[in-house]
Amino acid sequence: MATGQLMAVTLLTRAIEYDVVGRKLEALKLYEDGIEALLKESKAETDAKKKHHYQTKIVEYMNRAEQVKELVTRWKSKGVISDKIHIVEGATGYGYGRIFGEYLNDDVRELLIEEPYVRDHYQICNVVMLCELAVRSCRNLKFIQLLTVQDAKNNDEQGRAFGTLKESLQKHAVKFVVEYSEHMHDRQVILSNGYVVKIGRGLNYFKPSPSRYQLGAFDYHYRECRETNVDVFYCPENNKS
Amino acid sequence: MATGQLMAVTLLTRAIEYDVVGRKLEALKLYEDGIEALLKESKAETDAKKKHHYQTKIVEYMNRAEQVKELVTRWKSKGVISDKIHIVEGATGYGYGRIFGEYLNDDVRELLIEEPYVRDHYQICNVVMLCELAVRSCRNLKFIQLLTVQDAKNNDEQGRAFGTLKESLQKHAVKFVVEYSEHMHDRQVILSNGYVVKIGRGLNYFKPSPSRYQLGAFDYHYRECRETNVDVFYCPENNKS
Repeated sequence: MATGQLMAVTLLTRAIEYDVVGRKLEALKLYEDGIEALLKESKAETDAKKKHHYQTKIVEYMNRAEQVKELVTRWKSKGVISDKIHIVEGATGYGYGRIFGEYLNDDVRELLIEEPYVRDHYQICNVVMLCELAVRSCRNLKFIQLLTVQDAKNNDEQGRAFGTLKESLQKHAVKFVVEYSEHMHDRQVILSNGYVVKIGRGLNYFKPSPSRYQLGAFDYHYRECRETNVDVFYCPENNKS
Repeated sequence: MATGQLMAVTLLTRAIEYDVVGRKLEALKLYEDGIEALLKESKAETDAKKKHHYQTKIVEYMNRAEQVKELVTRWKSKGVISDKIHIVEGATGYGYGRIFGEYLNDDVRELLIEEPYVRDHYQICNVVMLCELAVRSCRNLKFIQLLTVQDAKNNDEQGRAFGTLKESLQKHAVKFVVEYSEHMHDRQVILSNGYVVKIGRGLNYFKPSPSRYQLGAFDYHYRECRETNVDVFYCPENNKS
């Protein structure tokens, strides 16, 4: 088997494997990469019969990928409201543990973070903190996808930061993938157990600590917040393997 | 009543009050301050009868303070070994939550931190983190005393840091007092519920994080440690009000 063909088969086999066990986000990424690899093979193929075989397979996988994509999109549909928190300006007690903690459990295998502002140092740090909490709380977490806007001015720094985080998560057997979008608007964290957490300000609702030597410097439970609303939705349908 | 006399009475009344409810560390400090104030009054007093009355009271309070001091010293006597942890070089999973967490409960009203090295930024930060954890875990915590060595080179910075921490803890109704000692050697954290946690390296057994963008940058559960031993002792006698 040619290397290209082998790669396509590997990717698509894993896509099906993950698809079956409910790791939909990661499966979708694998379907897309696998189809791309198969398309390349198909183009290069001169034997008409083989070419036809490739094309049939491509259509087959595209249909399945489309279904998975619809399912993932449905994750974002709101579902039933499960909790509502109004954080008033200057309030404390709203670290990520308080906001996300009760939803981050062993049923979560994938996490999709949609947050346009992950450019400044403190914004990237907020994503790192959420990842720490998720890895620690979800024993079966395998995949974190971040959808954000690329930093036009300074994307070297942003890219390097994501590279470091990816490497670090890999050591905990969690794959980290960043996708960039120019015109994203929603700010939400989607958990594969059916919960969607929407924070008005996104992840960056903490005020800076006036000093490193006071409560709240490390434990964000004691950090003052900016005013924002948190809505948590539950889509039981999402929690299906 | 003269102001000096009033102050002495206030201090000593509170000392007895705290002594009775088991806030021994804080009571000891109040006895000492109250006795000092009373001594000043006694010296200034010209009426022989009143002077004698002061002196009788001073002896009375000194005896009680001595008893409390003995009790606090007994806290440091080792008691029964309750847990032993050997942290190997480079290990993770040993944040303060893991080491102190199960002992920090609502029975803890006072905390005595004996740690000679609280000079460098990261060392002060470690004390701040331990305070965050203690305040969050011990609903009845009222008093934290830090015994450390004064920074000869740069004690302005150290003093300012402790001032900031003191103000911050005050907002959570916890009094913070620093005492300096030149020839301290023990490194231990003494909880008023009877537990004594002794860490070979003291509080500073974490390695620095190579980057702010990786797990362990914020959650020390993921931070690599230096090799050290942790011994936890339990003195049920200490847990008496």
